[in-house]
Amino acid sequence: MVLVHPRNPLNIGAAARAMANFGFTKLSVVAPFEPHWREARSAVGASGLLQSAKSTECLAEAVSNCAFVVGTAALARRKPGQTVLRLPQLAPVVAGKLEGDSRAALVFGPEKHGLTRDDLSYCHVLVEIPTEPHQPSMNLGQAVAVCLYELARSGDASNTGAQPSLDSAPDAASGSLDLLAGVIEETMIASGYSPAAMRAANAQDLRLMLRRLSIDESDAHRALRLFRRILWRIRRP
Amino acid sequence: MVLVHPRNPLNIGAAARAMANFGFTKLSVVAPFEPHWREARSAVGASGLLQSAKSTECLAEAVSNCAFVVGTAALARRKPGQTVLRLPQLAPVVAGKLEGDSRAALVFGPEKHGLTRDDLSYCHVLVEIPTEPHQPSMNLGQAVAVCLYELARSGDASNTGAQPSLDSAPDAASGSLDLLAGVIEETMIASGYSPAAMRAANAQDLRLMLRRLSIDESDAHRALRLFRRILWRIRRP
Repeated sequence: MVLVHPRNPLNIGAAARAMANFGFTKLSVVAPFEPHWREARSAVGASGLLQSAKSTECLAEAVSNCAFVVGTAALARRKPGQTVLRLPQLAPVVAGKLEGDSRAALVFGPEKHGLTRDDLSYCHVLVEIPTEPHQPSMNLGQAVAVCLYELARSGDASNTGAQPSLDSAPDAASGSLDLLAGVIEETMIASGYSPAAMRAANAQDLRLMLRRLSIDESDAHRALRLFRRILWRIRRP
Repeated sequence: MVLVHPRNPLNIGAAARAMANFGFTKLSVVAPFEPHWREARSAVGASGLLQSAKSTECLAEAVSNCAFVVGTAALARRKPGQTVLRLPQLAPVVAGKLEGDSRAALVFGPEKHGLTRDDLSYCHVLVEIPTEPHQPSMNLGQAVAVCLYELARSGDASNTGAQPSLDSAPDAASGSLDLLAGVIEETMIASGYSPAAMRAANAQDLRLMLRRLSIDESDAHRALRLFRRILWRIRRP
């Protein structure tokens, strides 16, 4: 990853942290403002990644060993000369371009203005994070995190798999529901909730409700214990 | 979106900025450190979104009108009571849970420790950003940006294939569940089910269980009536 002329040491640190979070290791910084660069590298908790980052004079040097260079840009103002991808489209394009041990670079411009037209000329494609038209400009550290998340996400095959189900445990067997329903029904009667004329209707409602809840065995058992205790308490003389 | 007890005003500002970037508008802050909260709101360039953010005393209040609450957590240390989704799986699940004008909340904990066990008991599911095992902890502003990017990203794609939903009625709002949980808790205590030493743990278990059940408003109300009757009966001299 390449940061061109970053100004804010907090952003440099945030970029390095996101790299570590998502498994990226090689950072180059182009023409940093020296005091801030020193500050970022000497910050408490600054990573080995930051310690071993390369500082170069110009972007050309930073990307010289890369087979594919991706520039990040908010493009509203400019008419770019290359293909512009939306971020979710990026990963397969990068994967298709790289072979053997060839490398790609993802390049971020300075906080205020982004990459210059000259910087952009070193890029094979540009990538744009889809943001709201009236609020397109992202914080640098956040833009880095979002881009690296997307690349890691798309590289992870497990993310394209089947839909997860919210139910981690299977529903309780019908017999368990009936056992529970029986005790709740007794409690309804003992507490005076169910007058005689309503008992049959209430019992049906209760069975339906327990099935709507899609309760699992362990929760059904928990509820059973509670209602048994309540019933015992109500009946105690 | 809800930030619980955020410490750093820069992170509050960064979270608000990411919301604006990805088209989210409603921010609640729970028990912020007041000087920092004032500082974040009065910062140069602080958005209208930040000006109109709500500040509440507790998480229960912040999510009381939400039918689906998603907690963010790094779960290495904890054994959670609810389903844990990986971030790329989240959007279709949220979309499947919301109907009509029901609302979901995405909840972030404080920078250092994340959400507490008590906070997590108000969440229907947890979501985890897939990060490197040796560097799992993300900066708060970056975590917010990544989550909102993912939701916006998947919102685009989900236009193509809608998920069918089995739920005939939307889930009850978090506030209704809390009302019900409160009465059940009193019943547990009145019936001697909950000894004093177990009350906090039982209350958390109960909140989690009510969320696992995906109970709708009318069933929640039915259960509330029953437990009120039981409680009245138990307390009758």
